Amino acid sequence: MNIESYIRTIPDFPQPGVTFRDFTPLLAHGPAFKALVDQLSARYAEKSIDVVVGIEARGFVLASALAYALGAGTVLIRKAGKLPHQTHAQEYELEYGSSVLEISCDALQAGQRVLVVDDVLATGGTVGAAIKLLQEHFSLALEELVFLIELDDLKGREKLSGLSVHSVFHY
Amino acid sequence: MNIESYIRTIPDFPQPGVTFRDFTPLLAHGPAFKALVDQLSARYAEKSIDVVVGIEARGFVLASALAYALGAGTVLIRKAGKLPHQTHAQEYELEYGSSVLEISCDALQAGQRVLVVDDVLATGGTVGAAIKLLQEHFSLALEELVFLIELDDLKGREKLSGLSVHSVFHY
Repeated sequence: MNIESYIRTIPDFPQPGVTFRDFTPLLAHGPAFKALVDQLSARYAEKSIDVVVGIEARGFVLASALAYALGAGTVLIRKAGKLPHQTHAQEYELEYGSSVLEISCDALQAGQRVLVVDDVLATGGTVGAAIKLLQEHFSLALEELVFLIELDDLKGREKLSGLSVHSVFHY
Repeated sequence: MNIESYIRTIPDFPQPGVTFRDFTPLLAHGPAFKALVDQLSARYAEKSIDVVVGIEARGFVLASALAYALGAGTVLIRKAGKLPHQTHAQEYELEYGSSVLEISCDALQAGQRVLVVDDVLATGGTVGAAIKLLQEHFSLALEELVFLIELDDLKGREKLSGLSVHSVFHY
């Protein structure tokens, strides 16, 4: 099955000149979605993953299904103000302005083997903030960062040196 | 396994007097999360579900894992402005003000058998808007609405008359 054929290209979204890779048709197609999750699950089957961390909001979709397939738990890194209880916060730069990600203080336990999942690796700003949250506050084995799509020209991978990065599709 | 024991109670969140049921520890615990998804998957195993619709953002987590377990696709109902391409929109009332949900115009095909998943059934405003989006714009077999948690006192279920509603936990 050619699962990449379910990713469509939307020109000029979210702004003129930007080409958006829309993978919602892939998610919506049962066999394609299963093939995608099975492929990732096979990659990590022998890694004894404890937790798959998803980054709000599209990261939740792949993280959750992959966690279930691996028998792992899933932990949410969310935008500011969405998580109850005590949280750690990390600010990061956007093209215009900045934003904040949070994680619950007791979301993870020392020594857990972790994957971090987001939909797209672009400039790496968001996932960089997520990694900071995980590395500064928890003592984890960060097995790999997993993206559905990597936009190679934006060189986000260069900001993630020292970490293992796996992207399913490259554009 | 008593999966309900992984739901914790946070008093006075998001505002004083409100008791928040926090199920993030359940998601984070691999065996508990698997038991939850397996239990739901077994309920719908014979229903030939094509698509599990998740409502942003916490609804995505359960919808995605359940879709994968059923071999179904997953479709996202999102807050305004998040989906590319043409969308249908539906406004709904909040306690203070209003909000808008959207779905892609080509997200679903006529005749598909659909579950709609969200984390919590409270007053029913959000899921009511989601149902409107689905029923007004698509010709679907709406099999059941699925919630992890139903807050019985808020009587959201009464707004969903004529629809089958299943909640895993009641408070």
